Amino acid sequence: MIAVGIIGVTGYTGQELLKILLRHPNVSVEHLSSRSIRKEVPLGSILPSFRNRSDLTIHPFDWKKATAVCDLLFLALPHGVSMKLASGILRSGKEIAVIDLSGDFRLASAPLFKRAYGKNHANPALLKQSIYGLSEWSRKKLPAARLVANPGCYPTAVLLGLGPLAAAGLLQKEGLVVDAKSGVTGAGKSVKEELLFSEVNEDLKAYRVDNHQHTPEIEQTLRRIAGRPVKLTFVPHLVPMNRGIYATIYAPLKKRLTGEQLRRIYQKRYAGEPFIRLLPEKVWPNIKAVSGTNFCEIGLQADHQGKRAIIISAIDNLVKGAAGQAVQNMNLLYGFPETAGLLPEADGG
Amino acid sequence: MIAVGIIGVTGYTGQELLKILLRHPNVSVEHLSSRSIRKEVPLGSILPSFRNRSDLTIHPFDWKKATAVCDLLFLALPHGVSMKLASGILRSGKEIAVIDLSGDFRLASAPLFKRAYGKNHANPALLKQSIYGLSEWSRKKLPAARLVANPGCYPTAVLLGLGPLAAAGLLQKEGLVVDAKSGVTGAGKSVKEELLFSEVNEDLKAYRVDNHQHTPEIEQTLRRIAGRPVKLTFVPHLVPMNRGIYATIYAPLKKRLTGEQLRRIYQKRYAGEPFIRLLPEKVWPNIKAVSGTNFCEIGLQADHQGKRAIIISAIDNLVKGAAGQAVQNMNLLYGFPETAGLLPEADGG
Amino acid sequence: MIAVGIIGVTGYTGQELLKILLRHPNVSVEHLSSRSIRKEVPLGSILPSFRNRSDLTIHPFDWKKATAVCDLLFLALPHGVSMKLASGILRSGKEIAVIDLSGDFRLASAPLFKRAYGKNHANPALLKQSIYGLSEWSRKKLPAARLVANPGCYPTAVLLGLGPLAAAGLLQKEGLVVDAKSGVTGAGKSVKEELLFSEVNEDLKAYRVDNHQHTPEIEQTLRRIAGRPVKLTFVPHLVPMNRGIYATIYAPLKKRLTGEQLRRIYQKRYAGEPFIRLLPEKVWPNIKAVSGTNFCEIGLQADHQGKRAIIISAIDNLVKGAAGQAVQNMNLLYGFPETAGLLPEADGG
Amino acid sequence: MIAVGIIGVTGYTGQELLKILLRHPNVSVEHLSSRSIRKEVPLGSILPSFRNRSDLTIHPFDWKKATAVCDLLFLALPHGVSMKLASGILRSGKEIAVIDLSGDFRLASAPLFKRAYGKNHANPALLKQSIYGLSEWSRKKLPAARLVANPGCYPTAVLLGLGPLAAAGLLQKEGLVVDAKSGVTGAGKSVKEELLFSEVNEDLKAYRVDNHQHTPEIEQTLRRIAGRPVKLTFVPHLVPMNRGIYATIYAPLKKRLTGEQLRRIYQKRYAGEPFIRLLPEKVWPNIKAVSGTNFCEIGLQADHQGKRAIIISAIDNLVKGAAGQAVQNMNLLYGFPETAGLLPEADGG
Repeated sequence: MIAVGIIGVTGYTGQELLKILLRHPNVSVEHLSSRSIRKEVPLGSILPSFRNRSDLTIHPFDWKKATAVCDLLFLALPHGVSMKLASGILRSGKEIAVIDLSGDFRLASAPLFKRAYGKNHANPALLKQSIYGLSEWSRKKLPAARLVANPGCYPTAVLLGLGPLAAAGLLQKEGLVVDAKSGVTGAGKSVKEELLFSEVNEDLKAYRVDNHQHTPEIEQTLRRIAGRPVKLTFVPHLVPMNRGIYATIYAPLKKRLTGEQLRRIYQKRYAGEPFIRLLPEKVWPNIKAVSGTNFCEIGLQADHQGKRAIIISAIDNLVKGAAGQAVQNMNLLYGFPETAGLLPEADGG
Repeated sequence: MIAVGIIGVTGYTGQELLKILLRHPNVSVEHLSSRSIRKEVPLGSILPSFRNRSDLTIHPFDWKKATAVCDLLFLALPHGVSMKLASGILRSGKEIAVIDLSGDFRLASAPLFKRAYGKNHANPALLKQSIYGLSEWSRKKLPAARLVANPGCYPTAVLLGLGPLAAAGLLQKEGLVVDAKSGVTGAGKSVKEELLFSEVNEDLKAYRVDNHQHTPEIEQTLRRIAGRPVKLTFVPHLVPMNRGIYATIYAPLKKRLTGEQLRRIYQKRYAGEPFIRLLPEKVWPNIKAVSGTNFCEIGLQADHQGKRAIIISAIDNLVKGAAGQAVQNMNLLYGFPETAGLLPEADGG
Repeated sequence: MIAVGIIGVTGYTGQELLKILLRHPNVSVEHLSSRSIRKEVPLGSILPSFRNRSDLTIHPFDWKKATAVCDLLFLALPHGVSMKLASGILRSGKEIAVIDLSGDFRLASAPLFKRAYGKNHANPALLKQSIYGLSEWSRKKLPAARLVANPGCYPTAVLLGLGPLAAAGLLQKEGLVVDAKSGVTGAGKSVKEELLFSEVNEDLKAYRVDNHQHTPEIEQTLRRIAGRPVKLTFVPHLVPMNRGIYATIYAPLKKRLTGEQLRRIYQKRYAGEPFIRLLPEKVWPNIKAVSGTNFCEIGLQADHQGKRAIIISAIDNLVKGAAGQAVQNMNLLYGFPETAGLLPEADGG
Repeated sequence: MIAVGIIGVTGYTGQELLKILLRHPNVSVEHLSSRSIRKEVPLGSILPSFRNRSDLTIHPFDWKKATAVCDLLFLALPHGVSMKLASGILRSGKEIAVIDLSGDFRLASAPLFKRAYGKNHANPALLKQSIYGLSEWSRKKLPAARLVANPGCYPTAVLLGLGPLAAAGLLQKEGLVVDAKSGVTGAGKSVKEELLFSEVNEDLKAYRVDNHQHTPEIEQTLRRIAGRPVKLTFVPHLVPMNRGIYATIYAPLKKRLTGEQLRRIYQKRYAGEPFIRLLPEKVWPNIKAVSGTNFCEIGLQADHQGKRAIIISAIDNLVKGAAGQAVQNMNLLYGFPETAGLLPEADGG
């Protein structure tokens, strides 16, 4: 049993984390905080869905207090905040781990960070220490991690969908296209006109076309998996639904493959993975099948033009794309069962 | 042909007004302005749905410029702004009319205004001059109006639904309940966390329970129509859809009426009304049937408890509840055909 | 540990039941069936969100097979089916209990059933044996039950909202109005034109105005709680969201009460109730706060017209309004902790 | 002034057609029919949004009656019906034209039809006579047409987006990818479980992956425009919104082009087009900007991988993708102003 805390519990990701951690058999939630409050308040007074469910309180932001009482801190903060915090926490003198859910520690170098996020990194040294936590592809490194960079929601969907092909050396260097669709919680709780119900509802649009900050994160990890550079055209779209990432991937192959051959590559790589659902032929993922879960569904087929694969990957952006994967990474880090807290039916009675 | 202008064209009501006025056979749109821009810009650069449709520009807010070129100004501004503007416009020395779509001139007295809106009225004298423009019930007074107070969206739906009963002297003084449901554009384009897509979608809630600023407006007008005071319990709800007001009215009657008798009262009062659709027995309004139109649908029935009527009234909050009714009022003010611009099929070729 | 089965697992209620039962510490799911399949299939092949989560299969409908392997059967079937099944199950010779989620056993007499559902009851004798399972108000009777009639979603919300007032003898006999709003899963998975996305989305409408089959169920139970008849005007509305019942109740009182007095009545009656959230003054329920949970939120206030209460009650129609309450009833029937399976965080590790 | 009729007025496309035709200055609607009724009924009794707006009636299906009173018939029927009707109408002995909105006359040959729709064509001879009515690319042929095959909604969006590139000979033969997103009315009013609100809402999924019946229609027309075969990978997705087609096109180019060069090609081809909105650099289409209009918005950019264009095209599937384009084609066929009925503000007073 470890003591955990969430810094930034009132955002959508923070709330989802709390929901999972409260039912996790191996942890005790000892600290919650939010930058938007000035004094300690009962959890349910701010987050109505937790009324009557817990005696926890939310504290005003104070990382030292959090550090003092926890073995592990989840940072669920907007980009640009964690990079100023993490160093203090990690050097606090006590044995503590950090799982950061922002983009601050995902990229390998300061220049790459600047290119993606348009600002200087506050602590480039930490970029070297952080472990990128794409659970299914980082399993060996996680037990030793003290700072985990939890992947972005788009990268999680895309990389799980492309990993086996990249690892098999079958992905062409050029021509890869990913057309991604996201529910609105993917944008966090930002109060902007363009995210108002009356703007988003009955609308659909592409944004940051071929220019999204997650593109370098995807390319960096694909390169690690493939062992060589892969270029990506990435176009994200905002869809009028609360949750979900749906990535439709058009992948040029080094050689012609049948759908069957393709599927076998994935079956082999993902055999035994508790959270990967490889779908049978002609069955395609849908958001509802993964919504509220830590599963990633993958469907695939050889394109009739030949020498190309169509791969579709779907996740819940707040679970497998954020809070759920963060808990999965915690489980791997501490040697808990990988599904603990994430498959209620498996935690048993 | 008259020259008209819209002050506040970028809000949802302003856009809807423009859409209607551009196809109106008797007006020429000569001025558009917005408080949110600093220099003149092409219409389509701010309001994408007007791209390629018009050479109009939007000016920064300047009521004198607007007054100089228009015979009639529509003020589509948040509450509290028009009351500071109207006097200057009306005293500009030229023959000009104002149709105000905010709540600033709807209530008959400054104390009532203060009770409803929580602030002092900037120009109580004008409250006496303004004509309340509930078209179907204000038809005689409108031709002489120079300042029209366009009704709120909730009051329009409720008053059209209750008017015939009140006028017939059948409404009991106490016990009237109105349960109203509104689409999200009813709140305007306010950038607030509670109006974000990810908050509103898949949610439903009551707000300002028995305490909404439209309650005094409804009670004041019911009193005029009935010739005596009527008390109202009014509970509005926010519903995850863009448009529509749906008012379910539970009205205690002075005497027991059959559904047939009830319907006859309404048929008589609303015979020939171009925008009132009285529905047959057991048929109830729905939002889609009025969406994008200036119609109000009314369904009714005697309650099985007896001595009570159930009346349901539905409108599009941006059309009959705002911009459409404003144009209907303009038509009445200038003696244009009442449906001009509001029933495209009737304007002919 | 008891063995349970779900007959009718592919409907929305059946799926929700399964989700809860799989994580319940005291039960083992031993049988699932559906009337829409012809041969046994893996659970995940029909219900994608259960892929990779369970080795269970779905059987073609066969109540004898179900009865043979289970201690308790949940019947999640359309109205009119259970009343033909229950007798056979209960007389099978083995000790078995049935929790029926349809309307078949909720009304106390065959004539009342006919009035509500428009058809004759197939087994009036069983109506006498069934226990109406409004958990918070049926706690004493449930341990002895063999046939539980799980309440309808509207009745659950309305009765939990009105119970304390009725029990305190404060409800007037006449004038009670309930305006209810329901998400679309409330209609089940019926394939009808009026339930298509393109019909429901951006629409809102009342239906079965003052004529819904749940009205007798509410009146019957109110009468039991109040000890005298209470009349009800009930108007349900269909709202474009997936889940939720939101009941806005306008209740005439026998004597004038302040909001504070009103709240105290509820606090006293509901103290210690694990699934009732009584909200503080001026805070009103919203669907999201209860969505996916077994909670019922209640907000209340004295109406400014006096001698009337405004009470708002919100539940998730599939959980507290169906599957969740069914499990709560099972917990009460078998003496399991009342929250088992329903508050994952409470089931611990 | 011509007399027109709509066969199949109760579907979404039929209703939209009627809405446009009722305000069209050059036509008189003389006949409406539906296959779902058995006797003549007032328009508003079936289509509530037309209540109070018209004295028209809907007739039971009877093509001879329709032919007798009309100069032009719009067939708004499911695929497979028009091909049995058109011949009779066209050979009726009177001068009459047909605009068919189904897929029945869009493909050039019976084998191609069979491949796309999986059944034999009932009247292959007519395939030769029909004119494919992609207005902006068929303008010369339409005046002589007697049978117009109105394009599908996906093909309209994709072909308007790709046309200039294909015509300029810049499109590579292979590697073209179109990822398309559709609102739910794109599926018509089919009463299927998968189109229920509670299924579609909060979901997203791909369907007919690389296997949609519109793919041959797109390839056939691209070939005509380009003068040589072009292969296409086409993946459509169903999105929880009522209206709209959003096509994100990834087009490999024969030579490297800058965004500026790309834009110039489109500006040249589409200069003066009343319904094409070519967006400036870094501005991308959104559904709301075209919803309810006959506009097609196009945004474009050179892909940073080089030698590829990203083109996004958005239309309202029921207007430019069906009814609006059908009226535009009628305007071209009869020499009416091309925007008549389609830009209310341009039809003037």
